[in-house]
Amino acid sequence: MKVLKTYFEVFEILKDEFCNFNLQSEKVSIQEAVFRICAQDIIADIDVPHFDKSTVDGYALRCEETFEANDENPAVFEIVGEVKTGKVPDFQIQKGQAARIFTGGYVPQNANSIVMLENTIEEDGKLYVFKPAKPGENILKKGEDIKRGDIVIKKYQKLEPAQIGVLAAIGKKEVEVFKKIRVGIVSTGDEIISQDEKLDSAKIYDVNSFTLFTSCYKEYALPKMYGIVKDDFEVLKDILFKALQENDIVLISGGSSVGTYDNTLKAIESLKDSKVLVDGVSIKPGKPTIIAKVGIKAVFGLPGHPVSCLFIFNFFVKKLMDIILHQQDTFRKVVAKMKTSIATSSGRTEFVFVKLHFGDEILAEPLYGKSGSINLLNNASGYIRVDATKTGIRAGDIVEVILI
Amino acid sequence: MKVLKTYFEVFEILKDEFCNFNLQSEKVSIQEAVFRICAQDIIADIDVPHFDKSTVDGYALRCEETFEANDENPAVFEIVGEVKTGKVPDFQIQKGQAARIFTGGYVPQNANSIVMLENTIEEDGKLYVFKPAKPGENILKKGEDIKRGDIVIKKYQKLEPAQIGVLAAIGKKEVEVFKKIRVGIVSTGDEIISQDEKLDSAKIYDVNSFTLFTSCYKEYALPKMYGIVKDDFEVLKDILFKALQENDIVLISGGSSVGTYDNTLKAIESLKDSKVLVDGVSIKPGKPTIIAKVGIKAVFGLPGHPVSCLFIFNFFVKKLMDIILHQQDTFRKVVAKMKTSIATSSGRTEFVFVKLHFGDEILAEPLYGKSGSINLLNNASGYIRVDATKTGIRAGDIVEVILI
Repeated sequence: MKVLKTYFEVFEILKDEFCNFNLQSEKVSIQEAVFRICAQDIIADIDVPHFDKSTVDGYALRCEETFEANDENPAVFEIVGEVKTGKVPDFQIQKGQAARIFTGGYVPQNANSIVMLENTIEEDGKLYVFKPAKPGENILKKGEDIKRGDIVIKKYQKLEPAQIGVLAAIGKKEVEVFKKIRVGIVSTGDEIISQDEKLDSAKIYDVNSFTLFTSCYKEYALPKMYGIVKDDFEVLKDILFKALQENDIVLISGGSSVGTYDNTLKAIESLKDSKVLVDGVSIKPGKPTIIAKVGIKAVFGLPGHPVSCLFIFNFFVKKLMDIILHQQDTFRKVVAKMKTSIATSSGRTEFVFVKLHFGDEILAEPLYGKSGSINLLNNASGYIRVDATKTGIRAGDIVEVILI
Repeated sequence: MKVLKTYFEVFEILKDEFCNFNLQSEKVSIQEAVFRICAQDIIADIDVPHFDKSTVDGYALRCEETFEANDENPAVFEIVGEVKTGKVPDFQIQKGQAARIFTGGYVPQNANSIVMLENTIEEDGKLYVFKPAKPGENILKKGEDIKRGDIVIKKYQKLEPAQIGVLAAIGKKEVEVFKKIRVGIVSTGDEIISQDEKLDSAKIYDVNSFTLFTSCYKEYALPKMYGIVKDDFEVLKDILFKALQENDIVLISGGSSVGTYDNTLKAIESLKDSKVLVDGVSIKPGKPTIIAKVGIKAVFGLPGHPVSCLFIFNFFVKKLMDIILHQQDTFRKVVAKMKTSIATSSGRTEFVFVKLHFGDEILAEPLYGKSGSINLLNNASGYIRVDATKTGIRAGDIVEVILI
């Protein structure tokens, strides 16, 4: 019997071996850069806003002249003009003067406050202000939002729509991001056929190529399918070699059967600079998982069962992607109450799929399915972890559900 | 003073007006279909598996003959062959016989149980079994996972990787999905310029086109930018007309200023079959929001402030997309504890942006920024709702954070 690794040992191995993975970067337009990882610190080379800007519709004036104003004794101003939004005003505000201004307008020289339209009356070229205004009120000062020289986005920061907005605000049209992680996908097994073939009696359709391919999309990686390889060492070795040249990570699914598992292991070991890091993990599902390093690249031998295969992608492959891209674990957890009890007994850390029900409280219903059931996945919202030392979880217990 | 709508009134209006929006469908390959919405019930036209399948490596035999077996008195079988995975075995299992079989193998006729390799010894063509086996053990029966005739995926179900796997398992190469929602995006304002232009003194770069465009990607919609329109009624009307012909939803941002707001309203009203549904909402941020129906399509007038604009997209536009696609609210909430107190006083329902800190407990730190600050978004993890009747939230209170 070989000694299986625990899942946290696997996490440590992935970190140690791949934390210095040197992913190339590329320049893309800011709208294409969304959900990508920034490859350098981005420094603002302008102030935002780069002039004192009104944040409301109203009147620009000097607030000192409103300090005594109240409902009975309004402060009175002469209206000297209107600030055209998008234009620098060609007048200044002198004592006793005010100017119309709109949201986004350039605050005229000498004005230090914008009084909102709602709090004024304009009549016969005169402005009546009924409440004291404060210095700087309704003005976004030059550089108050972003200062020239500020680092606005850090290297390794993920570019969500908000960050794309920040880049747009400082006038960037393009940004340097890390290239997408390239993932080669190979299905193995003599019983696996493609959806193009006729289903004869002892065959099953390839599922893992498609769940892995689309899961890569979910992680903004760049997947490529290498088709189905029968249980033939030479063919597998050649495909693996090709896939490794063209990708950063290669996923070979199908190794639940001893023969296929050994074949995958042998094909990996036959390559130059290969090192098997993990050969079996003490978890359920996912025990027959292989992880290897070939040169600087990663190869995973994933279980053939579709449920186990997709689980191991989410658990280990996604983890490796986060390590390569210097990302913290993405937050996708929900706290729920167990709907019914479950018993576990494998002596390994078990992951139990659950369906979430949203009502006054969130209930997690455990899903059962024989090993190899694909329909189980169809109903699962996520999974919970039951440690090897436990024998189950009771109905009513509070659990943490990791969403898939 | 006009009466503002509450946000739940707006939700009801969106539901009433757009729940029958008739989005066309299209056929795409299953790998392209990921994250799309299924446009019809999918019925399995095969059983999965479509033969009795072994789920382990082991031996196929008749379990009745093992019922008396124990460590001292193993049941003994003659090994009559090996099932080649992917092939229908050309032999049957008779009394006293067993056959080697691997994960995924076709269970030979008459066998009713698979004994795992680990629980046996094979020696000189004989198999020794030391534990009783159960009927059906380690066999996935024909149709046990998916039955021919079952509805495996329902109309309006979102196709995540797991559902793509189910489609692959039943041999589908293509699937009918709803077309992506087409969204036209227009920025307005005399002060707005594109990143291609030189930033002169009273101008600011267009931000909203980019945050809206990339937010559409996040929702798997199909955005198209129509550029920047100065505050000119005729030009806005023409662009709006064109954008409405080419899209399902049109977003016009920039209407925080009274003039721009009125312009947008006037442009909408000038179109045939137009109906303004919402003209101002009692929330903060996002008060100057316009929602209209033109024919069967939707037009949003969004605030010009980048933070308000993106917030209203997430709050109302995303809601409309969910209604059109018959989706439940996507679950993106986290329960957290307030790090510091906040005071609200607008008399409207306020949404306060927060940054989440993950430690032993999740803390929500309120973020402040003057109206119009784009950098605020850069730091926000999500927002919390403070009802109009409340005056704030105290440090230590438990809040629900809607992630952005």
